[in-house]
Amino acid sequence: MTGRLVVLGGGAAGMSAASAARRVDPDLEIVVLEATGWAAAGLCGLPYHLAGLVPRPEDLVAYPAAYFRERRGLDLRTGVTVRRLDAAARVVDTADGPLGYTAVVVATGGAPATLPLPDLGGRPSFAVRTVEDLVALRTLLDTGAVRRALVIGAGYIGLETAEALAHRGVAVTVAERLARVLPTTVDPEPAAVVEEHVREHLRDRGDLRLGTDALALAADPSFDVVVVCTGVRPAAAVAAQAGAHTGPGGALLVDDRMRTSLPHVLAAGDCIAPHHRVLGGPAFVPLGPTANKTGRVAGTVAAGGDARFAGVVGTAVVKVFDLEVARTGLTLAEAEAAGLPAVAQDVVSRSRAKYYPGVRPVHVRLVHEPGGRLLGAQMVGVEGAAKRIDVIAAALHAELSVDDLADLDLSYAPPYAPVYDPVLAVAQAAQRDLRDAQRSVAGPSSLAAR
Amino acid sequence: MTGRLVVLGGGAAGMSAASAARRVDPDLEIVVLEATGWAAAGLCGLPYHLAGLVPRPEDLVAYPAAYFRERRGLDLRTGVTVRRLDAAARVVDTADGPLGYTAVVVATGGAPATLPLPDLGGRPSFAVRTVEDLVALRTLLDTGAVRRALVIGAGYIGLETAEALAHRGVAVTVAERLARVLPTTVDPEPAAVVEEHVREHLRDRGDLRLGTDALALAADPSFDVVVVCTGVRPAAAVAAQAGAHTGPGGALLVDDRMRTSLPHVLAAGDCIAPHHRVLGGPAFVPLGPTANKTGRVAGTVAAGGDARFAGVVGTAVVKVFDLEVARTGLTLAEAEAAGLPAVAQDVVSRSRAKYYPGVRPVHVRLVHEPGGRLLGAQMVGVEGAAKRIDVIAAALHAELSVDDLADLDLSYAPPYAPVYDPVLAVAQAAQRDLRDAQRSVAGPSSLAAR
Repeated sequence: MTGRLVVLGGGAAGMSAASAARRVDPDLEIVVLEATGWAAAGLCGLPYHLAGLVPRPEDLVAYPAAYFRERRGLDLRTGVTVRRLDAAARVVDTADGPLGYTAVVVATGGAPATLPLPDLGGRPSFAVRTVEDLVALRTLLDTGAVRRALVIGAGYIGLETAEALAHRGVAVTVAERLARVLPTTVDPEPAAVVEEHVREHLRDRGDLRLGTDALALAADPSFDVVVVCTGVRPAAAVAAQAGAHTGPGGALLVDDRMRTSLPHVLAAGDCIAPHHRVLGGPAFVPLGPTANKTGRVAGTVAAGGDARFAGVVGTAVVKVFDLEVARTGLTLAEAEAAGLPAVAQDVVSRSRAKYYPGVRPVHVRLVHEPGGRLLGAQMVGVEGAAKRIDVIAAALHAELSVDDLADLDLSYAPPYAPVYDPVLAVAQAAQRDLRDAQRSVAGPSSLAAR
Repeated sequence: MTGRLVVLGGGAAGMSAASAARRVDPDLEIVVLEATGWAAAGLCGLPYHLAGLVPRPEDLVAYPAAYFRERRGLDLRTGVTVRRLDAAARVVDTADGPLGYTAVVVATGGAPATLPLPDLGGRPSFAVRTVEDLVALRTLLDTGAVRRALVIGAGYIGLETAEALAHRGVAVTVAERLARVLPTTVDPEPAAVVEEHVREHLRDRGDLRLGTDALALAADPSFDVVVVCTGVRPAAAVAAQAGAHTGPGGALLVDDRMRTSLPHVLAAGDCIAPHHRVLGGPAFVPLGPTANKTGRVAGTVAAGGDARFAGVVGTAVVKVFDLEVARTGLTLAEAEAAGLPAVAQDVVSRSRAKYYPGVRPVHVRLVHEPGGRLLGAQMVGVEGAAKRIDVIAAALHAELSVDDLADLDLSYAPPYAPVYDPVLAVAQAAQRDLRDAQRSVAGPSSLAAR
């Protein structure tokens, strides 16, 4: 293929797409248009730069711009906003003028959901999504002018931001409209474990206010800064306005090769709704690994190569102070919303053998159908939750059942797990309940047979 | 079923069998005959009691004997040696006299491989397998009489024992006949990483001697004690002498219900060779989780219930000083010994995002067939190896391919993983090599087509 590939967005998806396209076609002209001044920045690392754990924003960048330009031969242009995509004419309009393309990859990412904040009387507010947002907030912190902060939203970005601010010595109040933390990440029962942990950490300086009117709180002048963390929506406007079909949350619909409904227009990353293997349809779950993988597929296909995206199962993990909070598949609430027959099994297992020093509880919820089909899992613990969820992610990918999960041959040594790993423990508990349910359905004759 | 179930052995497998049988049949007479004075002791915890991390040997016991006797109604007899099994007459001969049975579960465990040690001139030697062995060695340590110790064998038990002794301030020399550590656990390349780590830890006080004549070293009177850790063999003699068929390593052959070749004789735990799903046949891999699971199946079936054992995939993990060393499936050496076409893919990935404080290398080896069939994996690292191996254990159980592995939706947050998890990184590297190999096999026409 000869021609020009234009990639809209220089984030994880966009740079993955451009790099993959280059691997397929050494001669293709590849232009990457990035609205901010930063390309290939790992946005998931922003809270850790805010906390001071990652000293320089440059540390968050996968490769410097010069590497992409010189070593990969990409025409990477930062600070360029794309106004319009004309799929029929194969042109994108930018602030610098029109740019024709043979193929385009839309990797415009996500945008923070906004709130109708009251007049803050000159106090600053932030929605931390770009490196620039973060640098501005961190610069403000460095002046020492921030003693009290209001974080609006107790989702994972809100809690990560609260932790980072607390780490910097700021008294943080987290305000959430709903009566619980992590409303889109885990079910209420695991969330209660997280809530208690957050309250412990904010006890001395700060507060967690659930089921509250955050906008009213924002008017309180004792908060030196307001940080809005009320979620992410797909930044799909340019492609949607060009006629690309959208689905859940307004995200772009794509096939398994990342092709949108428009010819020669592919899409990847936080602006798309990729296939969800457990739901059996598209879902908006904007996360880093998916951005990287879908970017790679989009770039490969756009350059004339062959690649497919196998879909997601909805795996995610977040660090909340000392707690690992992990999920995969569907929560019970998500399964019920999807109309699936679902039950939840909760166990409190351990991170190590019960006699091994440092052993901690691991809270596990398994979500499955009464017939034994696995739907998802959630894990919460100071250790042993973050990557253990991946065992169930693999099980979901392979469509294993509850019985299969209980059969897995998982590693054991006293410093790392109980002899029945938490994954096996929750699967065994689910098996017992399924057996008891069958026995009670079978009724008296079954009892008599015993 | 009415009658008497006799369980030979009160370790993990035997007590699991007895407890499972009780759940199936509340009225069954269940006799457990245990040769030592300890039942339900977690032998995997012995090194940690030796190290002083687990204060009392009682802490290693899953439940006290009184619990099994009173709450589970088991006739648990300790200090009883079984001399003979007569499968035709359905009788076991013990030191206390004959005992008839309707079914028997052989859970006689493993026994340490022995060595023809030279005359030690009165210096003590140990083979740490039972709680009694351990208590004796620990009592000796507590006297302060042990300044220098020789550990024979650099397998996982040898290295765990060396670590425990070093933790107690003993100068430890580990001597191994082969030129490498962990010879039955990992391939030479991952073993080299472990070797370097062990040398660092023994540098100041002690030594690691590979490819050496350990028996000659044992004659050196400067070693106050000699600990033999040269492996475990199945303690299958009683059942084998009764005519039960044996397989790899002399372990008892069983079907998926843990039935031996003798009628009414079942077996479980370290004395059996269960089905290995990757090898497609029996294998002797004596480990705690398999003992528990096969015990459960044997007890359930022996009491008239229904249960099946799905088999193992060969997963194991060991802590070696600060290093997690994990494996699943087959090593390259094991695959080659089994006549499988196998290649190995090595990558050095990371435990966290590259910019996150505390990030450490994770060495990963993936073993697979040139056609993409997964055969096994090995992981070594200060963090991020022990339970990450379980993702590949699940993949092996589900018979996923290298391509499937690269497609998994694994959890990501900067404190816990790079955006491409080490599992994905090694799968992607294997995919690249497979593609390159296909390309070079296809030859010039393929190159021209590009």
